[in-house]
Amino acid sequence: MSGLRTIAEDGDGVVILDQTRLPRETVFVRLATLDQAAEAIRVMQVRGAPLIGATAAYGLAIALREGVALATAIATLAATRPTAVNLRWALDRMHTVLAPLPIAGQAAAAWAEARVIAREDEVANAAIGEHGRPLLERVARRPVQVMTHCNAGWLATVAHGTAIAPIYAARNAGIDVHVWVSETRPRNQGLLTAWELDQAGIAHTLIADNAAGLLMMRGAVDVVIVGADRIAANGDTANKVGTYLKALAAREHGVPFYVAAPVSTIDFTCASGVAIPIEERDGSELGAAAVPVANPAFDVTPAALIAGIITEQGVFPATGLGAIRQ
Amino acid sequence: MSGLRTIAEDGDGVVILDQTRLPRETVFVRLATLDQAAEAIRVMQVRGAPLIGATAAYGLAIALREGVALATAIATLAATRPTAVNLRWALDRMHTVLAPLPIAGQAAAAWAEARVIAREDEVANAAIGEHGRPLLERVARRPVQVMTHCNAGWLATVAHGTAIAPIYAARNAGIDVHVWVSETRPRNQGLLTAWELDQAGIAHTLIADNAAGLLMMRGAVDVVIVGADRIAANGDTANKVGTYLKALAAREHGVPFYVAAPVSTIDFTCASGVAIPIEERDGSELGAAAVPVANPAFDVTPAALIAGIITEQGVFPATGLGAIRQ
Repeated sequence: MSGLRTIAEDGDGVVILDQTRLPRETVFVRLATLDQAAEAIRVMQVRGAPLIGATAAYGLAIALREGVALATAIATLAATRPTAVNLRWALDRMHTVLAPLPIAGQAAAAWAEARVIAREDEVANAAIGEHGRPLLERVARRPVQVMTHCNAGWLATVAHGTAIAPIYAARNAGIDVHVWVSETRPRNQGLLTAWELDQAGIAHTLIADNAAGLLMMRGAVDVVIVGADRIAANGDTANKVGTYLKALAAREHGVPFYVAAPVSTIDFTCASGVAIPIEERDGSELGAAAVPVANPAFDVTPAALIAGIITEQGVFPATGLGAIRQ
Repeated sequence: MSGLRTIAEDGDGVVILDQTRLPRETVFVRLATLDQAAEAIRVMQVRGAPLIGATAAYGLAIALREGVALATAIATLAATRPTAVNLRWALDRMHTVLAPLPIAGQAAAAWAEARVIAREDEVANAAIGEHGRPLLERVARRPVQVMTHCNAGWLATVAHGTAIAPIYAARNAGIDVHVWVSETRPRNQGLLTAWELDQAGIAHTLIADNAAGLLMMRGAVDVVIVGADRIAANGDTANKVGTYLKALAAREHGVPFYVAAPVSTIDFTCASGVAIPIEERDGSELGAAAVPVANPAFDVTPAALIAGIITEQGVFPATGLGAIRQ
């Protein structure tokens, strides 16, 4: 398994990097059954909308090899997490390819299609990096001060990342970048981003999510780039909870706020943000015993707060997604 | 020691409730030397601007009984934490009373003055509760949905609290209240608020700080009340980091955002928020090993975002603090 790819084929299964154990330890886990694949998505051993999609595609191929019926396997995987549309997108695509085939041919075709989905994600994210790079290049300050939220790096995708892809691309073009990494409670995915950036030798500073407003007030942030779990047709964007607060602060201080995501994250059937289902996760994630907890995992940032959506087809105004080739 | 008072006299020392060990365990600690008092403030065994002030006053009295010179004791205590103005306010007041006295009489006078400061805080906070109560009563929904940040309850003061005082007053008047308690990373003082509210039998739900924007977008919050560590003459308010993000979201959704604090928290010598020193605490508070961390403990909410400052003299517009009797 390459060091910078989150999911790799391994015989009749796949090997993933267990993200619940990073950054403390680097543990690879083999997924060889449908249940293992579904559980890996549910407990967030794999996470990030694009990687969830790719894992679901491989999980479906694994299920078919096990002899599970196509509809059963799709239902099991679709039920794991509700917000990331890439999950449904990948399963819909697999269904379209597989349903017309005789059952005897589905498993091999599923494996091939999962491989294409994973490879396309890798290519799309590299393109996102190139399309986003000029947004950092044109900032006058060096190092360019970028703020992100959660982890939308290579760990959240098959490779390269979405929000972090332009940072990698800028660094590869010789541009000095420093990243403000917010902790991202309650699951602390900021630690995954810090780990990624450390591995890549990119300067970064971890902050409590609460510090984002002060840093923008102080002029310490040139641009915000985040990923997305689902983008509605009108540009409203669901992403990890806390994204919206950063977008409000960015607008207040004139800091451009970008969303980076492959086109597969845009849900053209979803008219606006209010139609996006928001996953409620278990309160135990906050780690407080015997206290009533509400734990929504995502929030919605209105299109009006977004300077642009960085996709593999280019950078689009959040309110101009109709121009995208589907 | 009464269950609802954070600091009590005990012979020639004071007993405090160690807030670094709440809510896991209720441990009382005796402060009998200047160094113990200074350390208790520095490591946040006592915290909250009003309680820091009272503890500093008692700490000075303890120091004088130890035979420490007045100027030395004041310098030691003043250096513990930079943002909460109540610390400087209490020490200035003690100095004004004690400096003219013969050294032999200073210790007894210091003890008496510390007692007055503590008692005044208790009375002021009860008045804050009564002045703030109508702001909850006039909300149509029951339970009234209040959001707070950090802990500005009785634990942050000598008694009653500041931001939580109106909630206690409303409950005592028979008004049903539910409180959204934000975790308040990195020190998790939201757990102190949850513990206080649980003890008082007031409904509450803990949330990640990141969830505040989504809840306001959903219309789940009627009013936000927070405390303050220092209020500038123009109404700009320094409070626990993350307060500013809540204020921005509150404005976006038409939710009134109040600050509750005794007049001793207003620094009339400080023209505006930019003049308020922001404490940088150790990065280890975020709990991430081997990662570069920035950890500002406070941020500044501009007066324009504040619906009113609830004081013991009544509720004032944030931009109208000149009407307050100093």
